[in-house]
Amino acid sequence: MAIDSLRRYSIVETLKRSDLAALASLSPTEVLLLTGYCPVLGQSLAVFSREGESYCIVPEDELELAKKTSDAEFIPYKPATLEKLTTPAAALIQPTRELFWRLRLSSGDVGTDLDAGMTAMAYQSMSCFRATVVSLLRSVGEDLRAVSADGLLARLRSVKTPIEIDRIRHVSKLALKGFKEASEVIAAGRREDEVAADIEAAFSRVAHDRFERGQGYFFCMSGPNSARAAGAYARTRRRVLEQGDLVMIHANTVGDGYWTDITRTFVVEVERPTQQQQQMEGAIAEARSAALRLVAPGIQARAVDAAARGVLVKNGFGAEFSHATGHGVGFAAADPNALPRIHPKSPDVLEAGMTFNIEPAIYCDGIGGMRHCDIVACSASGADVLSNLTETLNEVRVPDYGSRGGPFHRAHRRTRG
Amino acid sequence: MAIDSLRRYSIVETLKRSDLAALASLSPTEVLLLTGYCPVLGQSLAVFSREGESYCIVPEDELELAKKTSDAEFIPYKPATLEKLTTPAAALIQPTRELFWRLRLSSGDVGTDLDAGMTAMAYQSMSCFRATVVSLLRSVGEDLRAVSADGLLARLRSVKTPIEIDRIRHVSKLALKGFKEASEVIAAGRREDEVAADIEAAFSRVAHDRFERGQGYFFCMSGPNSARAAGAYARTRRRVLEQGDLVMIHANTVGDGYWTDITRTFVVEVERPTQQQQQMEGAIAEARSAALRLVAPGIQARAVDAAARGVLVKNGFGAEFSHATGHGVGFAAADPNALPRIHPKSPDVLEAGMTFNIEPAIYCDGIGGMRHCDIVACSASGADVLSNLTETLNEVRVPDYGSRGGPFHRAHRRTRG
Repeated sequence: MAIDSLRRYSIVETLKRSDLAALASLSPTEVLLLTGYCPVLGQSLAVFSREGESYCIVPEDELELAKKTSDAEFIPYKPATLEKLTTPAAALIQPTRELFWRLRLSSGDVGTDLDAGMTAMAYQSMSCFRATVVSLLRSVGEDLRAVSADGLLARLRSVKTPIEIDRIRHVSKLALKGFKEASEVIAAGRREDEVAADIEAAFSRVAHDRFERGQGYFFCMSGPNSARAAGAYARTRRRVLEQGDLVMIHANTVGDGYWTDITRTFVVEVERPTQQQQQMEGAIAEARSAALRLVAPGIQARAVDAAARGVLVKNGFGAEFSHATGHGVGFAAADPNALPRIHPKSPDVLEAGMTFNIEPAIYCDGIGGMRHCDIVACSASGADVLSNLTETLNEVRVPDYGSRGGPFHRAHRRTRG
Repeated sequence: MAIDSLRRYSIVETLKRSDLAALASLSPTEVLLLTGYCPVLGQSLAVFSREGESYCIVPEDELELAKKTSDAEFIPYKPATLEKLTTPAAALIQPTRELFWRLRLSSGDVGTDLDAGMTAMAYQSMSCFRATVVSLLRSVGEDLRAVSADGLLARLRSVKTPIEIDRIRHVSKLALKGFKEASEVIAAGRREDEVAADIEAAFSRVAHDRFERGQGYFFCMSGPNSARAAGAYARTRRRVLEQGDLVMIHANTVGDGYWTDITRTFVVEVERPTQQQQQMEGAIAEARSAALRLVAPGIQARAVDAAARGVLVKNGFGAEFSHATGHGVGFAAADPNALPRIHPKSPDVLEAGMTFNIEPAIYCDGIGGMRHCDIVACSASGADVLSNLTETLNEVRVPDYGSRGGPFHRAHRRTRG
């Protein structure tokens, strides 16, 4: 996999417009952005020069993997040895000095992530360097200073290249496997955790398709638990599904560091959903279409939120739609502050290449919740829905759910969408 | 679930011996240590006073969950609202001020984690506050200063209370479900990712037993890939299993923030392992017994490493055992610097209540690897193996594998050990 030339170009242009001597980071998400490699253990230092060269000091255990996913220049180091006790932070000092000397980087501001922010998980444990990137750079040269480039990095992350969009599209497509399984295994009498386990297993069998490392998190929230899914995180419990329940399946799938965020809502084993369920379904479908129709470069993100929210308010569900219509997705799944924020007060403007979710929802406390969450790219010609869960991708670019069915699915029937 | 009175006592005694005005942290692992609650999104601030009171400012979406797992005092806040754009870091300032004022904490050093270290994952994305805990405390009071308490926190984490050990034992016991499935599904012709998916699914169905949130990561590494498992992270690939292969199943299971690290090695569908496999098996079993026999309070951790390593060297496998014999496990799964470090150069001394893994292994490049990893608690009477994968726990405290079989298992036979 070659380094992404458009990504390289966007970083170079950004650096040119800044006073930064270079960009450097130890956070897996930023390392992926700057090198094309998503570190496993978070012990890799990425350095991107003003000349457009991308370097990465990686644990030697990750070298083979790193080279498989990117052709940035990788410099191996040993975060641990049998000969002495050390730490990744200590072991990084010497190779960092050597790299900076080689690049003749001995003074100036190096942009990095210093502020609080969300990080996507790449393994079950991960190194956090906290403030030590500051001392690491100081140990390299007294005239080098770590400065916050958080805003600059957030903007770089928000606009994806066609290659990155393709990866997100592919890991979205793989999620189809899980949602197909969902329509088979959702049944009265089964527990949420059993259903989620079956779906995750079905996904796991395809998780490595085209990716070196792939993983899927699928959550099942049924009946009253689906109404609690308005929260900032998904949670599978042990509730037993009942006939007529709304069942929300929330998925975050990841391949080599590229994430999705997809939700579909099912109803358990009924011939016909209740009238209220049908009203919810109709309102969400209409809200989704209204939001998608607006998506285009130059459009205010808050206008997209207003379009979806307006439909739900008109249908009497304003109070039951308690979160924003969406947020940036791709380098992480669940960061409400990732650009663009599709939020009533957002100052963000959509740009071609931005990827985000559109998640109109209705949560009726104590009864049930319904959400339809897609991941969408803003293209020159409008919304490109990356999570069209049809077998042939892009069969329908912006499906008009109004006439073709609803955003939720009867279990034991084929998944539409 | 009541707050753990022995944990409270250990923190109070540690604070008394320090000059710290309080302990405070935003890192999920430290919040679990200080409050008994493992935050989902990493947006919770724990404060532990010299008087022994434990407070936690949590996102309101996590309040119900937090109260289910701990009776520390929880103070909810809103990390996000529809009314304005904000961030968890900004939204935390006011509730933090109010809590510190209420505690009359207006000056002095507050101990926190500032250095680099490993953090266990609690969700697929997590907030990292990096250096902002420093500015958060400064915004509370000009005379308050955040100081590094990293060493103190690491020591507090290393010694578990009986309640914490019981949780680790239980989540180890649940892993049995996965290993039983492994002995059924490992077969020639199947791919590593298929095998891992089946095992993970079997575990997932019991992951919520006694825990509000449970997850299991199971990895499958076969043939030559098992020889590469010496690396710092486990990785399932798509290799097809062959008859006679060594197959390593590596598990990290977690319940409400308490982690395990367990590995078993299987051989695919043979009546009799090869002579080399039998030699490897015998050496690992002997190394394991030698290490476990030494475990007791007051023993040098490096002596435990030497005991295991000596056996492997004697059997001609010294060069093939390329990592340390173990490291602390419990608040995270995969941190080689967690105390006690069972490493040739370790200055650490075992104490009653310490939990760690013992993982003798042999990696024969290009051929295959074998590892047997248990999680062990140091008790007054010796090693308490928490990952005895028998159905009745503690049936055998320190199994003598020498006479009863090997540390690895034939697929399609019942798992022993």
